[in-house]
Amino acid sequence: MRKVYLDHSATTPVDSRVLDAMLPYLRGKFGNASSIHQFGQEARAAVDKARRQVASLINARPNEIVFTSGGTEANNLAIRGICEAAATDARHIITSAIEHPSVRGVLDYLEKQGWSITRLPVYDDGIVRGEDVRAALRDATVLVSVMMANNEIGTIQPAAEVGALIRAERERGRKHLWFHTDAVQAGGRLTIDVEAIGCDLLSLSAHKIYAPKGTGALFIRRGVRLFPQQIGGHQERERRAGTESVANLVAFGAAAELARAEMDERNEYTRRLRDKFENEVQAKIETIIFNGDRDRRLPHVSNVSFRYVEGEGLLIHLDMHGVAVSTGSACSSGTLEPSPVIRALRRDEELARGAIRFSFGKDNTEDEVDYAVDALSRSVESLRTISPLGRKDAGYGTASGSERMPDAS
Amino acid sequence: MRKVYLDHSATTPVDSRVLDAMLPYLRGKFGNASSIHQFGQEARAAVDKARRQVASLINARPNEIVFTSGGTEANNLAIRGICEAAATDARHIITSAIEHPSVRGVLDYLEKQGWSITRLPVYDDGIVRGEDVRAALRDATVLVSVMMANNEIGTIQPAAEVGALIRAERERGRKHLWFHTDAVQAGGRLTIDVEAIGCDLLSLSAHKIYAPKGTGALFIRRGVRLFPQQIGGHQERERRAGTESVANLVAFGAAAELARAEMDERNEYTRRLRDKFENEVQAKIETIIFNGDRDRRLPHVSNVSFRYVEGEGLLIHLDMHGVAVSTGSACSSGTLEPSPVIRALRRDEELARGAIRFSFGKDNTEDEVDYAVDALSRSVESLRTISPLGRKDAGYGTASGSERMPDAS
Repeated sequence: MRKVYLDHSATTPVDSRVLDAMLPYLRGKFGNASSIHQFGQEARAAVDKARRQVASLINARPNEIVFTSGGTEANNLAIRGICEAAATDARHIITSAIEHPSVRGVLDYLEKQGWSITRLPVYDDGIVRGEDVRAALRDATVLVSVMMANNEIGTIQPAAEVGALIRAERERGRKHLWFHTDAVQAGGRLTIDVEAIGCDLLSLSAHKIYAPKGTGALFIRRGVRLFPQQIGGHQERERRAGTESVANLVAFGAAAELARAEMDERNEYTRRLRDKFENEVQAKIETIIFNGDRDRRLPHVSNVSFRYVEGEGLLIHLDMHGVAVSTGSACSSGTLEPSPVIRALRRDEELARGAIRFSFGKDNTEDEVDYAVDALSRSVESLRTISPLGRKDAGYGTASGSERMPDAS
Repeated sequence: MRKVYLDHSATTPVDSRVLDAMLPYLRGKFGNASSIHQFGQEARAAVDKARRQVASLINARPNEIVFTSGGTEANNLAIRGICEAAATDARHIITSAIEHPSVRGVLDYLEKQGWSITRLPVYDDGIVRGEDVRAALRDATVLVSVMMANNEIGTIQPAAEVGALIRAERERGRKHLWFHTDAVQAGGRLTIDVEAIGCDLLSLSAHKIYAPKGTGALFIRRGVRLFPQQIGGHQERERRAGTESVANLVAFGAAAELARAEMDERNEYTRRLRDKFENEVQAKIETIIFNGDRDRRLPHVSNVSFRYVEGEGLLIHLDMHGVAVSTGSACSSGTLEPSPVIRALRRDEELARGAIRFSFGKDNTEDEVDYAVDALSRSVESLRTISPLGRKDAGYGTASGSERMPDAS
């Protein structure tokens, strides 16, 4: 059976050039980067190079990059690290309603520890407003954590605006206020310049940019103190203990360099595929709703709610056609809750449950898009035919307008 | 130049069979194990298999294995996780004086948070006494953390004895007392049976058993509650969030299975190399001292102090001959402190500074041992000739007995 992978926001295949770069470190160059001898020095040099490559992707200095086991660890380290290190009694954090489970989870944990959390709305378009951040700021605010781009609907958040705001507060003499942004989905897809954004902390993940799973990084601006979450050896300048995952870091570095070099090309290409997909879906399937602002979003993501259809059922149907997509974030799988991201768009529960994310990659083809749209329209039609929601609604006679039901007969 | 790697306690090369097992997951089988579709299911099945393989290595149930980013994370999760989850005001921990920096570091951190820590001595032989553990137990003791085998001198600790002790306490109706053992060095080298040991938590690392760096596991006995240290998605049954490092886990599983199948053979082989090495060193180099009990230790490790020689200098000399060894643990590198492990043997500072760890692997050869001994004896001789310690001492005339100096002329 044909297989079409349209779930690049969940994870990406390893680029063959990335694999080639890392393989020597899974073969002869196997040293521990903390060892003093030549095997160790060789590994150290490789890790240093990877650090420069990842730093370059976001215009950071190499020693501002701390490697982690992934985006989740980066987010945990950023938030818990800052909050535990903050030499202040202030305990207020501002965030958005659509953060990744690893940010949301850590903030829920801190809330139980007595922190107050302000979760800003994202309105119908899935975008936080800078003025809402400003209005939420209190004397007690220690951290603002707002993602760069959402993982389900791809909407791009006004990170630079938030950064400017925080910077202005600092210039007014304020201390103990930091800005973290989760750039796991934005990394390699948007041009990221930590100087222009003015963030203090920024999370990245390797496996979203064609490197293996199990590796990420946290940018920690020079001078920002945070409390390490993993204690032990002296690795990562005492900010994150543990033997470096050398081969994976080499892969991450290589992937970062490729992403930087090929970003425009990849974006142009996946945008074309995505737009083709959306045009065809719109032409072929009725009563659909695109989730999230259609302009200010990542070029490779399309999130669509199909009325009268349950997302999970549609996903499984598509999977039987070999088309891989997702409902919500992969990290949320295992719950039966409707996506909190789609709910935050003030969609009703049915639409939230009917949302599917299609995320395109540099190796997808136009032909795959055609195949996927075809599988999708057949799956939606067949699910609507048997859907109790569909039947019930169809029983009321002909629907009309943007939510017209296909003829169920 | 010839290269002879004798630092297998720092890290091991990736076994080519392990690499073969993981490669498909760096190529076509790239799914996120949390994704529902076929790509995800394929990854999930691979992670499940790896979990069974790692569980088998220590006679655990698969759902008692939590994968981590390495031994350091496993140790952090075990200790912080238990201490944060312990629903008790008791705050006392018993440990040994020779734990790995990641255990030592977390305990130092907890001490600053108000916990009391008892650090048990290891005497001249580098071995903790069960009766000392018993004597140190208080009503307030929540955790005993004693490693299975030491990372610098290889001495095997009486884990089963400690486990029996804790078990007896429980049978007397005691709650809130857990036993953690760091088996990072013992994994794949000693037969480990968590039932026989009676531990509640046990840490493992992949890169010590011929799998890549960046992966480990924590055994958490069924029913033992611990507070997660990495919060986010639902991975690892809510005990450790973050996208699974699929390829590395597959490698870890394959390496665990090979280690289990080949353990006796590898041990017999490395013991023979190690013993040959020690015999030749003893025959060729004077005034040396073997550190740690020579019977109750891992079969592949030899730790030797060379009097009148600084370990770091000797390491560098050996490296110039292409022989890779280490002083202390790789995770301790970057400090100028003499090894706390060797100091714990009540050696003077000079001997602690002169200690070198030679750790043999399944792919070393007898010829490599000969080459290393030759390089070693030439290096020691040359360093002693120029050593201020050596010169001073030589000036006193002929030394005698076990610490006789070679003629410095």
